[in-house]
Amino acid sequence: MTMDGTSVGEFVLGIDFGGTKVALATASVTGEPVQRTRLATRAADGAKEVVRRVLDAAHDLVAGTPGRLVAAGVSTFGVVRDGRVRLAPNVPGWEDLPLPALLEDGLGVPAVHVDNDVNAAAVAELRWGRLRGTDVGLYVNLGTGTGAAIVVGGKVVPGTHGAAGEIGYLLRDPAEPGYADGRAPLEEYTSGSGLAARGSALLGERVTAEELFARRGEPAVAALLDDAGAAVGMAVANLTVFLDPERVVVGGGMAEVFLPALRAAITRAAPFPPPVEAARFVDDAALIGALALGVQAT
Amino acid sequence: MTMDGTSVGEFVLGIDFGGTKVALATASVTGEPVQRTRLATRAADGAKEVVRRVLDAAHDLVAGTPGRLVAAGVSTFGVVRDGRVRLAPNVPGWEDLPLPALLEDGLGVPAVHVDNDVNAAAVAELRWGRLRGTDVGLYVNLGTGTGAAIVVGGKVVPGTHGAAGEIGYLLRDPAEPGYADGRAPLEEYTSGSGLAARGSALLGERVTAEELFARRGEPAVAALLDDAGAAVGMAVANLTVFLDPERVVVGGGMAEVFLPALRAAITRAAPFPPPVEAARFVDDAALIGALALGVQAT
Repeated sequence: MTMDGTSVGEFVLGIDFGGTKVALATASVTGEPVQRTRLATRAADGAKEVVRRVLDAAHDLVAGTPGRLVAAGVSTFGVVRDGRVRLAPNVPGWEDLPLPALLEDGLGVPAVHVDNDVNAAAVAELRWGRLRGTDVGLYVNLGTGTGAAIVVGGKVVPGTHGAAGEIGYLLRDPAEPGYADGRAPLEEYTSGSGLAARGSALLGERVTAEELFARRGEPAVAALLDDAGAAVGMAVANLTVFLDPERVVVGGGMAEVFLPALRAAITRAAPFPPPVEAARFVDDAALIGALALGVQAT
Repeated sequence: MTMDGTSVGEFVLGIDFGGTKVALATASVTGEPVQRTRLATRAADGAKEVVRRVLDAAHDLVAGTPGRLVAAGVSTFGVVRDGRVRLAPNVPGWEDLPLPALLEDGLGVPAVHVDNDVNAAAVAELRWGRLRGTDVGLYVNLGTGTGAAIVVGGKVVPGTHGAAGEIGYLLRDPAEPGYADGRAPLEEYTSGSGLAARGSALLGERVTAEELFARRGEPAVAALLDDAGAAVGMAVANLTVFLDPERVVVGGGMAEVFLPALRAAITRAAPFPPPVEAARFVDDAALIGALALGVQAT
């Protein structure tokens, strides 16, 4: 028996559905990864075809893992509520799919826990990372997209419609268009994809966010990035004021570059500034999160 | 026996410490008020003298209420943590006073629940008002000050230092000074006291927020108030995006005048806009809140 009271040889499956790739892993119920694989999402094929191919890959992975599959965790783009995924326009048909039920049937396990990728990453930090032991905490993901997760009572708060923490929709200015106008103001301004679009427009050539950070020596690029850092810093500082968390943990590929801006804004704004730390899991945070959801479901 | 399982004749005491007045009431354990009184705070006399006079008034009120005092609830300015009140500069010495312990001793009841006035008002809305039955909710107080309370799992979230919901400290602009500089950006811009100060500066004469709203016909005044409404609307819309509440309830003396601005911003920004309603309790919200805290303590 392990510390969790389960037999050695039981394992969980984690699936992370991303817009361009799907990552899968099996792990012991204490979280040690056993096997991994990944495949292209091929979103254009439609949601059903994506799920079919992922189930094939999952079966292969499970067959190659010694022991017995006891639960699965799934992280996905969008928000999850009542067994459906919403706010997920990237894969056609994704919002109509009863994803949890399909996976339970397809995998033959009764316990499948589905959540969005940012909430899943926060669950991984709560279980194995920098949010361990926190009662009230804030997880922020600064990557291709911009998202957050609220922790209260040591658990991620889903919100009424599964949309808590969807901070890409935060307004930066009282008069600007928002979600109702098809916009995601903070995400468009400060996310990796948003910065790439803004940087490309600024420089008159196609650049990625990574390339922008490498070209910080150019004054115009530096101004763009500083401005983005100030905007996301103010947003996260305001969420910190509102929630009064014990700790702010920042994940996603841009966590390190924006940490100083976040710390500065939080120190300036919050009556009780909490520690602001880089997440333990970065590149594979949503996959580790899916495994954490699986372990949670055991 | 009542619905709460307590004997008829048991009652609770509520005390609301405000900057200029202290209100006291007794009520049945189901919340029906029995007796009320109030006295001037006389903050300049210092914290100990304020508490002494309030205890005298409480004893009189309790002696004049038939039955037996079983618990007391107290609402106060500032934030409450570990039996101390913080962020309460208005009464000299208030922050050094072990208020809960003093009141427990002074009142001779073991159950004294102390919280800040906005959290107390939210507890009243949860128990008897517009937040009844909500799992995730947002309470906003727009009055002399600007504050909020976060409801998760049907309970007010205090935050790590008792400071959750202290939205008067929200930044409106990435570059502006914040709490660390002795400022409360949103409160200075949109609260009753902030509007009075800004309106007085604008008009070159001393005006209250109430007078400003009465002079809305003047273009300069209208511009000031519209701008304040847009700022508080964006702030509350962003908190709504972040928390994804089932309902937003707005209390305080300026709730009605700012409700349209709040609704407009929330409708524009939130993926799932919740109903936005005026609070049930307005003028005496913190006192009813203190009674609700007392009932909660029984």
